[in-house]
Amino acid sequence: MPNIYDSAYDLEKAIRESDEFKNLQVAYEAVMADESAKQMFDNFRDTQMSLQEKQMQGQEITEEEVQKAQQVVELVQQHSEISKLMEEEQRLNTVINDVSRIITAPLEELYGSPEEPTE
Amino acid sequence: MPNIYDSAYDLEKAIRESDEFKNLQVAYEAVMADESAKQMFDNFRDTQMSLQEKQMQGQEITEEEVQKAQQVVELVQQHSEISKLMEEEQRLNTVINDVSRIITAPLEELYGSPEEPTE
Repeated sequence: MPNIYDSAYDLEKAIRESDEFKNLQVAYEAVMADESAKQMFDNFRDTQMSLQEKQMQGQEITEEEVQKAQQVVELVQQHSEISKLMEEEQRLNTVINDVSRIITAPLEELYGSPEEPTE
Repeated sequence: MPNIYDSAYDLEKAIRESDEFKNLQVAYEAVMADESAKQMFDNFRDTQMSLQEKQMQGQEITEEEVQKAQQVVELVQQHSEISKLMEEEQRLNTVINDVSRIITAPLEELYGSPEEPTE
């Protein structure tokens, strides 16, 4: 019988050694090595997070905030290294979401369809 | 190099075959097989979820709602099969949280400490 923790560490190693993770790492380090790109990226992250927080707390988001956020997005999309980083984040994110769906399948099956006939 | 998807399916199998998951399954099925226990458990779940939703949306929770929720918790805790199920849920939850921490470690390292010296 496979052990959960051993399997989890194997998966961690597979993620760490994957092209998706390595490419993300390279893209992230390229942005961090460039001071103005780093500032632009941090600013983008802060804007996204503060809007997300407001949304989750049911607070109203003003027209001005929406416009400011759009400007920040347009700015980072024009920056080739940041847009490369966002692309790589998106790629790894897809993989992590798949992994999450795979490993929570037993729970989904148990809780998701209690009324389903078993035969 | 281990493959991410192969490793994820191995981990899924390990979770599915673990004592923690099997015990949860037995406890869940025992509650579902007992109509009054099932209703009590569903009621508990609904109460928890509606309070959580309110909290996340920043809505005020009334004194009456808090009291009602406490009563529901006390009720289910006295029901031996439901409290057994909640215990097993807690156990598997701990394992799943550990797994999640293990497999997201590469990302945590990358994003968590960008300012750390590399040598």
